[in-house]
Amino acid sequence: MSAILRCLAASLALACAPAQADAPAKGRTMQQVLDASTPTDWRTPAAENTLYLDLADGRVVIELAPAYAPLHAANLRTMAHERYFDGLAILRVQDNFVTQWGDPNAEEKDKARALGKASKTVAPEFERGIDKELPFTRLPDGDVYAPEVGFSDGMPVARDPKSGKTWLAHCYGMVGAGRDNSVDSGSGAELYVVIGEAPRQLDRNIALVGRVVQGMELLASLPRGTAALGFYDKPEQRVTIKSLRLAVDVPESERTPLQLLRTDTETFSALVESRRNRRDDWYKQPAGKIGLCNVPLPARKPPTH
Amino acid sequence: MSAILRCLAASLALACAPAQADAPAKGRTMQQVLDASTPTDWRTPAAENTLYLDLADGRVVIELAPAYAPLHAANLRTMAHERYFDGLAILRVQDNFVTQWGDPNAEEKDKARALGKASKTVAPEFERGIDKELPFTRLPDGDVYAPEVGFSDGMPVARDPKSGKTWLAHCYGMVGAGRDNSVDSGSGAELYVVIGEAPRQLDRNIALVGRVVQGMELLASLPRGTAALGFYDKPEQRVTIKSLRLAVDVPESERTPLQLLRTDTETFSALVESRRNRRDDWYKQPAGKIGLCNVPLPARKPPTH
Repeated sequence: MSAILRCLAASLALACAPAQADAPAKGRTMQQVLDASTPTDWRTPAAENTLYLDLADGRVVIELAPAYAPLHAANLRTMAHERYFDGLAILRVQDNFVTQWGDPNAEEKDKARALGKASKTVAPEFERGIDKELPFTRLPDGDVYAPEVGFSDGMPVARDPKSGKTWLAHCYGMVGAGRDNSVDSGSGAELYVVIGEAPRQLDRNIALVGRVVQGMELLASLPRGTAALGFYDKPEQRVTIKSLRLAVDVPESERTPLQLLRTDTETFSALVESRRNRRDDWYKQPAGKIGLCNVPLPARKPPTH
Repeated sequence: MSAILRCLAASLALACAPAQADAPAKGRTMQQVLDASTPTDWRTPAAENTLYLDLADGRVVIELAPAYAPLHAANLRTMAHERYFDGLAILRVQDNFVTQWGDPNAEEKDKARALGKASKTVAPEFERGIDKELPFTRLPDGDVYAPEVGFSDGMPVARDPKSGKTWLAHCYGMVGAGRDNSVDSGSGAELYVVIGEAPRQLDRNIALVGRVVQGMELLASLPRGTAALGFYDKPEQRVTIKSLRLAVDVPESERTPLQLLRTDTETFSALVESRRNRRDDWYKQPAGKIGLCNVPLPARKPPTH
């Protein structure tokens, strides 16, 4: 395929024109913002908050959000340390909703995998109190579901100053702990990730535990299950989990070097603005607005220089 | 897998409890609303506005929106009638954005497929005037991107009473005509469909032509391309288009019988309400709100009785 077609086709959404090095009047593109970022604009997620979900096709990297779900994060660390998930499977892929994994035999007493030192129940962590110590970069354009939205340490969050509560928001790539009707039944033994339009109706009804920061395409491109709710009809359709480990339990040489753009910096605010008003020639009517789940959260390999 | 686990796992988002036949105080679930629907709540999309995109794995059904993009709809009818797309390919799948198809050789003069009677350029149809004849069922909860949002003949739309304009909105499953930097370059020869979080920044910048009403999972579950913007690196990764035909050009016996829920009825308003406030026991804090792109648009096989 010629470079020109790539450009033509690509221009659906991203600039093909060379980046304008000097266009203060028009503002900056996201690429220009990122190119101008400094090392302090980036952070390395802590190894004790990083999960590696290894599948035959590659690795999914998940960052936990212990500030919002400390009990779930702790339970997941225990499960990962004890290799609870290794050999279990992706059970459900429902189009425009979630991919979900866990123990296919969870309900069969004789076959279900033991949780070891992990808890079977975990107190609900659906929301928490607003705390001045908690970072919050507010977005300027409002939200359909919550009074305020923004980012907290890389996580999309919502807040209600009236109730004094804040919570993680169900954006694309967010990971949560599936639960039964009782609010403490989401131990983390069954996890899901959002693969479609943000199902914000789930906010404050279930514990989100973190987000996928690399490898979403591996979970979003799986065949959809054809049984009710996207469950795979046949055991052989399930995708086996090679392992789910905490990065601290993985030898350094096998870890995935990764940096994430901080969300409490001027660079991040500039990035948000670059997405609110697209600056390349393709856009004729910049939106002038941005939704919480439309803000990209850049990740990169640590620079070598 | 036991029914119980299905229920447990499923309860992440959908009711497992038996439908409550009589729960006026709590309101109705979506299933109860649909079960109570009457034949007049449903419509059959017109064959001259229905495209069948046939792939090896199955059929994708697209309903055109001639009220919003009449010139593009006409050009697409011509292309489909002339079998322009047959044998062409899906070229690009960008995670959380779009799947796009067209002519891999579009930019190579000697190899590009001829457009026949179809136009190479089509006047932009990015928005249109608000017209009292145009159906509009407004949603009650606002929108980040537009002053008003709702549904018009099954299509998600936005409106700005101040400018007097209305436009189709980039929700999951919406189909648009890729274009180059010039506004009339989107002939329909390269089409894309939204497979992730609604990229509403594209609204009013490109012509949407309709929406997928069945078979989205076939386009959303494709492997993501690894080249820039999700293009497939190698020709053999592309997915061949068996055919893209207008339903009127397909023998009756090969058509897909389908009905869509009307969006200008009390049943549809009840459905919206059932999704704003989920009524099953799983939900502890019904959202009380709904975003434009979170409203499901039910399709069904025509009942046989």
